[in-house]
Amino acid sequence: MEKLGPNCGVVKTIKIIGSKWTILILHTLCSGTMRFGELQRTLEGISPKTLSLRLQELEKEGIVMKKIFTEVPLRVEYSLTKKGITLKEIFDKMDAWGRKEN
Amino acid sequence: MEKLGPNCGVVKTIKIIGSKWTILILHTLCSGTMRFGELQRTLEGISPKTLSLRLQELEKEGIVMKKIFTEVPLRVEYSLTKKGITLKEIFDKMDAWGRKEN
Repeated sequence: MEKLGPNCGVVKTIKIIGSKWTILILHTLCSGTMRFGELQRTLEGISPKTLSLRLQELEKEGIVMKKIFTEVPLRVEYSLTKKGITLKEIFDKMDAWGRKEN
Repeated sequence: MEKLGPNCGVVKTIKIIGSKWTILILHTLCSGTMRFGELQRTLEGISPKTLSLRLQELEKEGIVMKKIFTEVPLRVEYSLTKKGITLKEIFDKMDAWGRKEN
């Protein structure tokens, strides 16, 4: 078999979503827009630093978008972009597999 | 939204396949039985120690099976179990997403 190279779709996908928290953040955002605090509560055990870093990476990749409402106190909401929503079918498969096989 | 708990299918799946090399090992084994050395060549950059450890974990989970042929030199082959093969649809989705979106 050939070496797994940069043209492999799985390699490309893993580069973007290949960390435990990234997958769980995106899976959570599949259910809709959320504020930072809500995400943190849902993703029990994630540190604010890690959450913030992962969200920034995902914004940079065009997977997550951040919307800031200039209210007092400031409201910041995160949601999936159109590109981000296309990942849902991967998480749906993971969800189905986890429920069936374990 | 509720906390992501141990009943979440995605959480369960990630516990088993949630590391970069694990995903790439399984994706590689989807194309058939392989010897240790072949896996190592295909997965460029993996250390023998990591490959060996990941394969052991996957054996323990009933995802990968090891077959030893008592020849000289010893031949050891790895393949997916029936349960392991059911993961293929996750990697197929990842592959398709990576090719389309990047």
